[in-house]
Amino acid sequence: MLLHSYINGNYYSAEKSVIPVSDLGLLRSYAVFDYLRTYNKKPFRLDDYISRFAHSAIALNLVIPVAKNKLKEIVSVLCDKAQTNEDIGIRFLITGGVASDGISLSSPNFMVLAETLTSPSGEKFTNGVKLMTDVYLREMPEVKTTNYRNAILKQEAKINSGAYEMLYVYDNKVLETTRNNIFFFLGDTLITPEKNILKGVTRKVVIELTEGLFKTERRDVAIEEMKEATECFITGTTKKILPVVQIDEIYIGNGKPGPNTRLLMERFEKVVAMI
Amino acid sequence: MLLHSYINGNYYSAEKSVIPVSDLGLLRSYAVFDYLRTYNKKPFRLDDYISRFAHSAIALNLVIPVAKNKLKEIVSVLCDKAQTNEDIGIRFLITGGVASDGISLSSPNFMVLAETLTSPSGEKFTNGVKLMTDVYLREMPEVKTTNYRNAILKQEAKINSGAYEMLYVYDNKVLETTRNNIFFFLGDTLITPEKNILKGVTRKVVIELTEGLFKTERRDVAIEEMKEATECFITGTTKKILPVVQIDEIYIGNGKPGPNTRLLMERFEKVVAMI
Repeated sequence: MLLHSYINGNYYSAEKSVIPVSDLGLLRSYAVFDYLRTYNKKPFRLDDYISRFAHSAIALNLVIPVAKNKLKEIVSVLCDKAQTNEDIGIRFLITGGVASDGISLSSPNFMVLAETLTSPSGEKFTNGVKLMTDVYLREMPEVKTTNYRNAILKQEAKINSGAYEMLYVYDNKVLETTRNNIFFFLGDTLITPEKNILKGVTRKVVIELTEGLFKTERRDVAIEEMKEATECFITGTTKKILPVVQIDEIYIGNGKPGPNTRLLMERFEKVVAMI
Repeated sequence: MLLHSYINGNYYSAEKSVIPVSDLGLLRSYAVFDYLRTYNKKPFRLDDYISRFAHSAIALNLVIPVAKNKLKEIVSVLCDKAQTNEDIGIRFLITGGVASDGISLSSPNFMVLAETLTSPSGEKFTNGVKLMTDVYLREMPEVKTTNYRNAILKQEAKINSGAYEMLYVYDNKVLETTRNNIFFFLGDTLITPEKNILKGVTRKVVIELTEGLFKTERRDVAIEEMKEATECFITGTTKKILPVVQIDEIYIGNGKPGPNTRLLMERFEKVVAMI
């Protein structure tokens, strides 16, 4: 739920946070975004998220109209204006602007939104979740565009299958879920896809955490190899490290979150507690 | 340029035509639309456009909140409220609504926009235009989603190449341009792609016009066959029937609009003059 916003230079309450209907983000899906969260009311890995947002904007020839320090200041102001004791989500969004002819790029509309956080229930972290595979390759997978039509369209099928997230596979390779990266343990070796994915900030943190702990391989993961995994988890801003115990009809390991995953989850909690 | 709008039950002037920033059409590209125009201030083929819009909405599990007659009434009211003596464009748009969690479908936001028309210059109809090919297959090509990111992203390259439109080709087949259908003459046989395209209303009118005049084939068109075409044109709501005389470095026929295309253009003008 929206709490407060910054849009094109001004701050707005939730109910006054609007954009013109002729915006190219709405009319033509021409927009990129990013999404981070706070821990202890402080933004986590803000620099990493800003870097990725800048990378996405460049890929779409969109110029973010504020400098990095100003963007940090906006985030800080919104954390205050959100007026909540809970941690919040922060969404950056930049669009192609309002096109007079309905198609040509114009001065971008740029906004930062403070939102309530939606987190998985504690039970999911304890027992792990099921994924449903879907054959799909995102357009521009390394850019955080707003194209989630496929994810929303198949949400009902996902829920009906008892899955918590949908796992994209393509050309016999495992890629990512609709909003998360995926990791597999083969014994004590941690493997995660590297190509045709959006590289998550939580993914980056996990790779840092494994240093000196596990051998890590960033490479293609074939579907056949996925079936041999001893443990599996997904990573994301709101899902943190979430154990996966089933993919379609295949149980991972013994069907319960494994010890290596639990160790990483504990370490991750220590990292976020420190900020 | 936006002239006037109908949004969720009310009419608004252009500057008051806004939607919440948490709309899933903006945040997640979850939206479908359609676009028609008036001739002599009357909507052209309104039933056909409404049918196609309904088809697109169904494909995305979106329920248009007004009945067909009400939608026709809204169009009629907007034609008046637009307060112009020029013909106008009418855009239908329906989105997944405002999602409290940023991803789940909600009550749709539904709008109808009255806009100024942008038409090709007369010179383009006289001399024909160049197309630039691009290897691309739209996701859900038979549904009029708002996904035009690829088209906008490559607009500069298109302009630099001297092309007026970008022609999507995929798997060695000719498909459609970013916003138009394509037709080829091989002698007196008219050929147009049938699969993996958005079926245009102007395309439908052209096929009706050719009855008893030319043999028409709706089927796959290989890139090699495209190169043998004696005439070519694209069709669309704002482009009507627009001759194509060059595709990349290949000239079509003698590099000038051909007689069969001219005949169809004349007949099309008679059709729209009659409404």
